[in-house]
Amino acid sequence: MRFDEAYSGKVFIMSRPTAEESDVILFGMPMDWTVSFRPGSRFGPNRIREASLGLEEYSPYADKHLEEVAYFDAGDIPLPFGNPQRSIDMIQDYVTTILDQGKFPLGMGGEHLVTWPIIQAFHEKYSDMAFIHIDAHADLREEYEGEALSHSTPVRKICELIGPENVYSFGIRSGMREEFQYAKESGMHMSKFEVAEPLKKVLPTLSGRNVYVTIDIDVLDPAYAPGTGTAEAGGISSKELLESIRMIADSDLNIIGADLVEVAPAYDPSEQTQITASKMIREILLGWTK
Amino acid sequence: MRFDEAYSGKVFIMSRPTAEESDVILFGMPMDWTVSFRPGSRFGPNRIREASLGLEEYSPYADKHLEEVAYFDAGDIPLPFGNPQRSIDMIQDYVTTILDQGKFPLGMGGEHLVTWPIIQAFHEKYSDMAFIHIDAHADLREEYEGEALSHSTPVRKICELIGPENVYSFGIRSGMREEFQYAKESGMHMSKFEVAEPLKKVLPTLSGRNVYVTIDIDVLDPAYAPGTGTAEAGGISSKELLESIRMIADSDLNIIGADLVEVAPAYDPSEQTQITASKMIREILLGWTK
Amino acid sequence: MRFDEAYSGKVFIMSRPTAEESDVILFGMPMDWTVSFRPGSRFGPNRIREASLGLEEYSPYADKHLEEVAYFDAGDIPLPFGNPQRSIDMIQDYVTTILDQGKFPLGMGGEHLVTWPIIQAFHEKYSDMAFIHIDAHADLREEYEGEALSHSTPVRKICELIGPENVYSFGIRSGMREEFQYAKESGMHMSKFEVAEPLKKVLPTLSGRNVYVTIDIDVLDPAYAPGTGTAEAGGISSKELLESIRMIADSDLNIIGADLVEVAPAYDPSEQTQITASKMIREILLGWTK
Amino acid sequence: MRFDEAYSGKVFIMSRPTAEESDVILFGMPMDWTVSFRPGSRFGPNRIREASLGLEEYSPYADKHLEEVAYFDAGDIPLPFGNPQRSIDMIQDYVTTILDQGKFPLGMGGEHLVTWPIIQAFHEKYSDMAFIHIDAHADLREEYEGEALSHSTPVRKICELIGPENVYSFGIRSGMREEFQYAKESGMHMSKFEVAEPLKKVLPTLSGRNVYVTIDIDVLDPAYAPGTGTAEAGGISSKELLESIRMIADSDLNIIGADLVEVAPAYDPSEQTQITASKMIREILLGWTK
Amino acid sequence: MRFDEAYSGKVFIMSRPTAEESDVILFGMPMDWTVSFRPGSRFGPNRIREASLGLEEYSPYADKHLEEVAYFDAGDIPLPFGNPQRSIDMIQDYVTTILDQGKFPLGMGGEHLVTWPIIQAFHEKYSDMAFIHIDAHADLREEYEGEALSHSTPVRKICELIGPENVYSFGIRSGMREEFQYAKESGMHMSKFEVAEPLKKVLPTLSGRNVYVTIDIDVLDPAYAPGTGTAEAGGISSKELLESIRMIADSDLNIIGADLVEVAPAYDPSEQTQITASKMIREILLGWTK
Amino acid sequence: MRFDEAYSGKVFIMSRPTAEESDVILFGMPMDWTVSFRPGSRFGPNRIREASLGLEEYSPYADKHLEEVAYFDAGDIPLPFGNPQRSIDMIQDYVTTILDQGKFPLGMGGEHLVTWPIIQAFHEKYSDMAFIHIDAHADLREEYEGEALSHSTPVRKICELIGPENVYSFGIRSGMREEFQYAKESGMHMSKFEVAEPLKKVLPTLSGRNVYVTIDIDVLDPAYAPGTGTAEAGGISSKELLESIRMIADSDLNIIGADLVEVAPAYDPSEQTQITASKMIREILLGWTK
Repeated sequence: MRFDEAYSGKVFIMSRPTAEESDVILFGMPMDWTVSFRPGSRFGPNRIREASLGLEEYSPYADKHLEEVAYFDAGDIPLPFGNPQRSIDMIQDYVTTILDQGKFPLGMGGEHLVTWPIIQAFHEKYSDMAFIHIDAHADLREEYEGEALSHSTPVRKICELIGPENVYSFGIRSGMREEFQYAKESGMHMSKFEVAEPLKKVLPTLSGRNVYVTIDIDVLDPAYAPGTGTAEAGGISSKELLESIRMIADSDLNIIGADLVEVAPAYDPSEQTQITASKMIREILLGWTK
Repeated sequence: MRFDEAYSGKVFIMSRPTAEESDVILFGMPMDWTVSFRPGSRFGPNRIREASLGLEEYSPYADKHLEEVAYFDAGDIPLPFGNPQRSIDMIQDYVTTILDQGKFPLGMGGEHLVTWPIIQAFHEKYSDMAFIHIDAHADLREEYEGEALSHSTPVRKICELIGPENVYSFGIRSGMREEFQYAKESGMHMSKFEVAEPLKKVLPTLSGRNVYVTIDIDVLDPAYAPGTGTAEAGGISSKELLESIRMIADSDLNIIGADLVEVAPAYDPSEQTQITASKMIREILLGWTK
Repeated sequence: MRFDEAYSGKVFIMSRPTAEESDVILFGMPMDWTVSFRPGSRFGPNRIREASLGLEEYSPYADKHLEEVAYFDAGDIPLPFGNPQRSIDMIQDYVTTILDQGKFPLGMGGEHLVTWPIIQAFHEKYSDMAFIHIDAHADLREEYEGEALSHSTPVRKICELIGPENVYSFGIRSGMREEFQYAKESGMHMSKFEVAEPLKKVLPTLSGRNVYVTIDIDVLDPAYAPGTGTAEAGGISSKELLESIRMIADSDLNIIGADLVEVAPAYDPSEQTQITASKMIREILLGWTK
Repeated sequence: MRFDEAYSGKVFIMSRPTAEESDVILFGMPMDWTVSFRPGSRFGPNRIREASLGLEEYSPYADKHLEEVAYFDAGDIPLPFGNPQRSIDMIQDYVTTILDQGKFPLGMGGEHLVTWPIIQAFHEKYSDMAFIHIDAHADLREEYEGEALSHSTPVRKICELIGPENVYSFGIRSGMREEFQYAKESGMHMSKFEVAEPLKKVLPTLSGRNVYVTIDIDVLDPAYAPGTGTAEAGGISSKELLESIRMIADSDLNIIGADLVEVAPAYDPSEQTQITASKMIREILLGWTK
Repeated sequence: MRFDEAYSGKVFIMSRPTAEESDVILFGMPMDWTVSFRPGSRFGPNRIREASLGLEEYSPYADKHLEEVAYFDAGDIPLPFGNPQRSIDMIQDYVTTILDQGKFPLGMGGEHLVTWPIIQAFHEKYSDMAFIHIDAHADLREEYEGEALSHSTPVRKICELIGPENVYSFGIRSGMREEFQYAKESGMHMSKFEVAEPLKKVLPTLSGRNVYVTIDIDVLDPAYAPGTGTAEAGGISSKELLESIRMIADSDLNIIGADLVEVAPAYDPSEQTQITASKMIREILLGWTK
Repeated sequence: MRFDEAYSGKVFIMSRPTAEESDVILFGMPMDWTVSFRPGSRFGPNRIREASLGLEEYSPYADKHLEEVAYFDAGDIPLPFGNPQRSIDMIQDYVTTILDQGKFPLGMGGEHLVTWPIIQAFHEKYSDMAFIHIDAHADLREEYEGEALSHSTPVRKICELIGPENVYSFGIRSGMREEFQYAKESGMHMSKFEVAEPLKKVLPTLSGRNVYVTIDIDVLDPAYAPGTGTAEAGGISSKELLESIRMIADSDLNIIGADLVEVAPAYDPSEQTQITASKMIREILLGWTK
């Protein structure tokens, strides 16, 4: 037995040993410095990796096996604590490098602000992209207590960058009045409370387009994902989220990248949140990455 | 900045600084001495306050903002440990004082026995009142192991005080045979297992009446509210409870007071129970108190 | 008061003091040495007993009281740590003794491998038996990392012993590709993802037969049963499992034995898993044991 | 293998199958209804039993094996929830019965109030007894918020019953000013903060006397016993408590009975409190019971 | 009973109802945005308040009762999430106001960076002050990953403001090589690993001076304070910290202000950290504030 | 920024990117299938890695920085669940490979049985080696419930392999009578209860010898390491263990390899056990590996 290779315990199961031979780059963004309630999502990516040990490599949902996808778990980007601006710059550079090599970026948060630099990187390459946002929170604020760089603002910034008409939010059940007003008036799409039903209607309208998808784990009811910073009662079930991932996989969208954010393990001693998140990552790997 | 006012960390978010300028009095009843299984609900009110920090002040369910309601979080009544009779007397006095000032009492438990002295206070003012009871447990015992003052008896006592025909129970899935028999024979209303569906049918029959509503958090399945003394599998979801609260808000009942009880934080390290309870309190404040 | 009898705190509530006067033997199998992810189910039986203290003795689902069933909680079989083969032999002997005395065995796991020796004992007496399997995992492997005695193999072994046409699996949402293929080709019945709906269709086809039923608590979504070794997102609710138990009770199958396995308390500080499991045990006692 | 005997999982390890053949009766008192801060010690006895599974049966401290002591774990006394007076009466009766049969009572709490009825039972038989009290709290109040039956009053009551000159408290680091004054003026012995040192001095003065010993687990620093209702920083270590138990065993006192109280498992997910308590019970069994 | 006053559950026990009649202002600083490992101390102050409910109001260490000190719990300063600079400005203003009114500021963190603005406020009034620092970490960095405002830098900044010869650190067991070098070369005092022993020697040299004291709860070994962001094995016991607080109280220093920081409740389900911290706050109130 | 290297979140801090350039190989042995009480140490190595993120890279104990040691974190050996024999064979092969390349093996358990194959590998190369064993448990059984391969037997096997006169046990406070007898009669060294004091006396007698050291984290009192399978009250403090590690580093022994075992994270939601273990690994890296 050799001891110089990527053995179990370090990476998401079935990761290829090098980036070169991989089509997908899985990476962590351990950042939670702007969260307003319960911090801790910086430990999310590592625990999702750990939980992947309990996964089957085959999915009966996709009827597909992880060995059919060539991906490399690149570990976490070493972000500087408490500095949102520098963190954001590093993430944008990192994702740009992945895109430059023609690979599919699959990110794990971390707080939701991480999606903002990712989309900036994508937008340079895909000027006509659309954005699907599955979340409990609108994330449409202009600022949060005076801060423009906040986990409450990324979707607003993305609307402003790629045009609100290219932004599609699902499952939203929390936000300021101003955010819901913006959603109504800006031309973006927002489905309140539900995900699978409205998604079924929207997907055909996005046929053939380049689409990035972000999932905030708190779209699930806290019963299904207690380990998250800003838990919101009244959410969807894991079953509905699995169905929604599958629906997107079965559509003819061209998924160009994705992330799953806001897993905060400290609040879930049962570990079910990261266990569930690791299953979602498996389904994304099997369904969206080509 | 002044340091002599009610800053964050002490009260439910958006509490007014004084009782005088408020229409609603929010108060805690930290009592759990008669519980038969897992004690700890005495810490419920404080943790619901703490969890309120994570709430948005605006509700997309009610399309309303907390600043539209004038309420004062008065803290916890200092109840004497292990003495049910004196605790009950203090609660009744306390609520009577609130009613005398024409304000709306919104209580947080604490064990369910606290509802008994509240209703005694109300009954003196509203002789024709009705009582809506949303709970996993019938609470219709005449006594519990020889004790008439028990968390298993309040609804029976209320039936005897205001007449069983004015009592409406929903979601009941646990009790002694004798309690279910009493429910059948006494003339009270009891819906087993479900809440939203039967409530929709019952509400029109209560049109225009003065109604007090009590919610035991254990009506939720333990998946949605693990932090409670007597968790009962087979309950409803947070979504269904949110819908039920809204349905009552949208009805033409005259809600005269309410409480939410049995949040026991020690059994829920994820804190989702108090997070969910604080959202229910927000929806009650926005929907029922005018 | 005498101190030489079985007082509370040692046994499942309402256990009779001796085996002689009982028709049902409730027993624990504290074994978890072959689990692949999170061990700890060896403590399941004791915590289910403890949680039974919080149960009502009457069930509004069955409209029946535990005093109507004569059962004896015999404690845990003292299985040897880390030795699957000897553990299995002991369980088979133990169950054979129960069957020889004409009593109904109701086992509590421990890991799912325990069902294999139980069925070997049953098969000697009931050569024509059928087997209902309610679980998230197919458990149809021939071996797990080279081990034939594994918590992933019992259903495959049972298929080989009693014939796959007599095996009915429900709720399956995880397994290797080979397991799903075997399910398709072998002639066994497998319902993926759902339990209550397909069970309703299958039960009439088993009319009058001798049937053993095993429930793996992880058929529930982790939201409802976080305290289990291999939690799998996308499961059923407690409500659906309660319904399914009732459906079997109301059918005209001849239930000859049953078990409930994989409760691992260490992963659930809320204790909801064992609380829920103890309710399922109550419903099985009231519904299946004649 | 027989299934009609006391197998593992129900009782403290090495319990004899019947009371008749035993010299010591080990019993639980699952009562916590008068506690002023964090309730939950009602589950203490069961978890101490469970934790005993991890113990060695041989002690290198005592150089003795549990098979050398004949004891019977009689389970918990079924005390009525929320009724201090009736609970106390039942405990007194129960202990009287044990004493009448010439056996050694070894109780597990439950809150500290349980020691009061035990001493009442003992005092009828041993009019000249002494009482050793190892605890963080003085427990010398005359009443607690108006209640004479409280977990804060038992030692005061015992002083009044057997004479303060026969009461010896060790490790005390919390109480009202009045309690410390009473300790000074009444003629009782109180050692503040320390246990082993002062005990070494006191034991010779008790030579040959009949002595009952009560240990409140909170005499340990919360670091060593976090699972207790009223944790008090600044306590002793497990090592010091083990030494103190041994010192008493090695003295020529005639120990007539003992208890260990206030283990509240809900506050200690690490389970170290009950694991430590079960070791103390083992050392008491090996050292004090003849 | 009136409902318009500060009842239990909102404030540290025995808080006076208004600031006016108080000599000491107790306040929370819920900030943790620059922590490098485990965030969550923003919830520290509220949980210390809650834990104070379990405290006796009398201290046998100080032989003094809380009613002898007039203090007002002013709640938490509403700091802006994720913005270190603005947070620091608010804290400095807040403390300046307290000092302007001639009151004693007693702060509860929050991360250790909060001590920096406090000392800036103090330094304007007390140009000759000394600073006692009890902590596991040197906190002497010039910057942390490029950030000057970090929980690793406050003591360095304070050295630069008031002169290293006026800074006295105790218990330090973690830091960069550069920090230990600075400690050696700058002229400040640093005692490694120990607190009580070196403090005994240093206190006489500070006789009569104006001294501010900061305690980082992580000076305790993680056994005694697991609920903190950057737990460091090898620390002191609660007993040693209690002794150290008493030693300062018994000295003839003029204590002008104090804080206790870094309690992060999410990492301590046993709650012992906040229970211990609340006892330390009581001893500070009784010993240092006049 | 490159994404094809070992970034944070995957390995112990400061691990070199390849084995080639390293003198020390750090590796995990995720095995717990023979534990008799609480399983779960299979997750120990990963959590120790994760906790290393909170460590300083410089040690004030050793006055040394991790960059001065060239080590490679090779991840976990992929051991087969539930198969002790095959696991043991794999570990022996693995360590033999490390030794063949002239590197220093530093293992992380997993259960203590892992030390047995490691010593078999060492013994082939170092026929005259000595063995230092720091543990709460004697681990001197010949078999455990019939199993020779058990976490209770490794030290006995090692005595038989390298001669009991070359085995030195410290801190032992639990075992069967037979184990303590063997210790007395066999010629091995055993210090009961204490570590630092006896180690100081023994080290000079081992001067110049090739010595392997194993540390079972449960030598610490459960207060300091609650996250372990078989917690034993009455242990040493973290301070004493740090001192002992330093004493060995400062001696003139030739340390040839080491391991740290039995970290079981599931029992310690505070994470202090892995945090403490990661500090011990740092001190071992800085002190023992040349």
